[in-house]
Amino acid sequence: MNATFGNAPELIIAVMALHAGLHEMVLASLAGAILANLLMATGISFLVGGIKFHNQEYNPVTIKMYNSMMFLAVYSMLIPSSFHRFFITGENTVYRQNESNLNILLAVSLLLAYVFYLYFMIKTHPDLFKSIKKAPVVKEEEEHEPWSKKKAIGALIVASVTAAFMSEILVGAAEGTGKELGMSSAFIGIVFVAVIGGAAESISAITMAAKNKLDLTISIALGSSIQIALFIAPLLILLSFFVGPKPMFLNFNRAEIGALLMAVILTTVVSGDGKSNWFKGIQMITLYLLIALLFYFIPEQT
Amino acid sequence: MNATFGNAPELIIAVMALHAGLHEMVLASLAGAILANLLMATGISFLVGGIKFHNQEYNPVTIKMYNSMMFLAVYSMLIPSSFHRFFITGENTVYRQNESNLNILLAVSLLLAYVFYLYFMIKTHPDLFKSIKKAPVVKEEEEHEPWSKKKAIGALIVASVTAAFMSEILVGAAEGTGKELGMSSAFIGIVFVAVIGGAAESISAITMAAKNKLDLTISIALGSSIQIALFIAPLLILLSFFVGPKPMFLNFNRAEIGALLMAVILTTVVSGDGKSNWFKGIQMITLYLLIALLFYFIPEQT
Amino acid sequence: MNATFGNAPELIIAVMALHAGLHEMVLASLAGAILANLLMATGISFLVGGIKFHNQEYNPVTIKMYNSMMFLAVYSMLIPSSFHRFFITGENTVYRQNESNLNILLAVSLLLAYVFYLYFMIKTHPDLFKSIKKAPVVKEEEEHEPWSKKKAIGALIVASVTAAFMSEILVGAAEGTGKELGMSSAFIGIVFVAVIGGAAESISAITMAAKNKLDLTISIALGSSIQIALFIAPLLILLSFFVGPKPMFLNFNRAEIGALLMAVILTTVVSGDGKSNWFKGIQMITLYLLIALLFYFIPEQT
Repeated sequence: MNATFGNAPELIIAVMALHAGLHEMVLASLAGAILANLLMATGISFLVGGIKFHNQEYNPVTIKMYNSMMFLAVYSMLIPSSFHRFFITGENTVYRQNESNLNILLAVSLLLAYVFYLYFMIKTHPDLFKSIKKAPVVKEEEEHEPWSKKKAIGALIVASVTAAFMSEILVGAAEGTGKELGMSSAFIGIVFVAVIGGAAESISAITMAAKNKLDLTISIALGSSIQIALFIAPLLILLSFFVGPKPMFLNFNRAEIGALLMAVILTTVVSGDGKSNWFKGIQMITLYLLIALLFYFIPEQT
Repeated sequence: MNATFGNAPELIIAVMALHAGLHEMVLASLAGAILANLLMATGISFLVGGIKFHNQEYNPVTIKMYNSMMFLAVYSMLIPSSFHRFFITGENTVYRQNESNLNILLAVSLLLAYVFYLYFMIKTHPDLFKSIKKAPVVKEEEEHEPWSKKKAIGALIVASVTAAFMSEILVGAAEGTGKELGMSSAFIGIVFVAVIGGAAESISAITMAAKNKLDLTISIALGSSIQIALFIAPLLILLSFFVGPKPMFLNFNRAEIGALLMAVILTTVVSGDGKSNWFKGIQMITLYLLIALLFYFIPEQT
Repeated sequence: MNATFGNAPELIIAVMALHAGLHEMVLASLAGAILANLLMATGISFLVGGIKFHNQEYNPVTIKMYNSMMFLAVYSMLIPSSFHRFFITGENTVYRQNESNLNILLAVSLLLAYVFYLYFMIKTHPDLFKSIKKAPVVKEEEEHEPWSKKKAIGALIVASVTAAFMSEILVGAAEGTGKELGMSSAFIGIVFVAVIGGAAESISAITMAAKNKLDLTISIALGSSIQIALFIAPLLILLSFFVGPKPMFLNFNRAEIGALLMAVILTTVVSGDGKSNWFKGIQMITLYLLIALLFYFIPEQT
């Protein structure tokens, strides 16, 4: 639910970039947003929550569903990207039509899967996604009653809109700053802009962790990643046939796909048991750091 | 047990193809059969069973054993295939002898591991593979008593033999039809023939799911995949030295290995907890669809 | 704790090799030691323990923590190695400075993560790493009381020092023997020397399994792997700037990285539930065998 609102501004910004034909920038921002959500937002949440509450728990069934969706998400990026890398090389455009068909049908399949996913979450199995009962929280005394759904959603909308607003202003500033600081364009696109642009959303995920509401943290960070990969990305492919100078296909480069695969596998292994502590946060932040280093030092022409 | 009978016809057909020197076709049919079993048969079973019973359970220990066997299986295909890709290029046949030795010793290792696996399943730890106790089934009233082992095995043999019979007739027809419909040979070999040829077995897996006997579904679909990879494939390598015009080595192409790896990882993450619902089925079917799209649009010369 | 002592001799030997500029040999020995620990020591332990005790259990929380650390470890090798493979080719040394910076900052990040890991294990969450309560052991009667921490550590130090002593003598002999037997240098470096050199440590892991102390087995084999990857490897990178003729960077070749990734994924899937039996051991040993075959037949010039 929240994810549906949470990424609306990102969609708008991406459509504008699509209109300007900035395909690589759009792809980098998609990959960057997923990496920042999966590793950075979740990592800091686990760290902050773990320091405050020693051990935290969240619904292990929900996280397993999210993790398998994330694998599907990365595969959906890997398949057309590999196709592009192996068959669309240099001036070889013989297979352009194949790539186009592959991307269109893949996008339609993903959107269908996403509709089923919403139907599953909201209609047939909402019980799998509810927060687990928490042991009475000791250190926190002001808030006895759990948030009502409305209140939670309201808070998330406010946070999301703020994020969007910040995003639009900050992204522009961030790019300029990054360039002046001599950052590589890969680092600016995938790390710097993603962290700045997603700051508000990350903060809301972290805040929930600090309130021992880790199920909300998970649903913000992972729900958002899933939506970006399985709803926004395929939607952008289809929209690119109408709004852009030429259609956009999913052709992430090797480093982006590799980083996403590493992130999804680590997240699955770290988070799969529904328990967290501060060091799990350190593990995820460390991987984010390693990936950021890679993009920082990667030569300009991949 | 059932797997031993289930794949007998596939073995016979493969040996005939081996005799004719159709190595690529044999490899494609092995990879295709595993993909269809892992993703399609299991996926539709989860979907159908999940729609009928909301949530289903199966033995989580069995599935973990099967999943780790599947990783071993894919590794056993990946290692010689990578060797081939990197060292046996074009006219470079200097390392042919190395490839030959690698394949022979690998095949022997796998057959040994498979014998241990049967011994483990049948002799030392049969308890790990028994069906979990099911909550009393409400919607199904005709069959109160669980099937006896004999009855279950009998049903599986009948299903398997029917499958074999259909297979031999259908595969020929399928290939002709596929070509007339303009399908790429990769798609015909890996997807179309595999789905048609494995239809009967898939139907028996799905039927079990529809009867809430998910443990049987799992043992048909995954047991069969394991047998193909760890018994039939190494057996074919060794046989190829005697029945074929030249020995066959495991050199799956990149797309086949990639698809198998993606399938095994997703299956492990989705199925690992011993629970299923209709959406887990959708996830697996979606991946199968994406892989099918890839093979459909992949240019002829890989 | 034990891991800190256990790998001290390996560090000393590696520093000497670094001083002699034998970078490839150092990297091969790091990869080989991890593979031997993960697959061979653990595999034989599971096999021996499983034959003696049918089913064994160990702390499933500890193993999950170790497994996620191992993923971080392999990623930390994969990232700089990929950088090297794609950007530092042949005479192209334009990006040498980037590679150097990437390796230094990566090493510092890993050492930091390792310090946090020790702090986590020893200070904040020692409870996650304690042995699970075992059912009373029937077949073993001489040892009623569990080992005291001191006794356990003492035994490990003795074992480690013995290992170091054997190592230094044996490694030299092993290399000579291997060459005379016509083994490829990859096989000698990654398999033969690793198995001989790590024999003593492996034996102590296996001995613990044979005494149904599988938590100690795990902490020896996996703890050691983690220390090699996340403490010794980064330390060597930093040291190489001072003791060697030229700095050493983490550039494992494709086969090494592939083998490590396969090993970590299989270990995670096989060991993740905190239960073991003899066939799990066979699975791990089989993978080790396949990897050993690959390195045995791999042509000299990778």
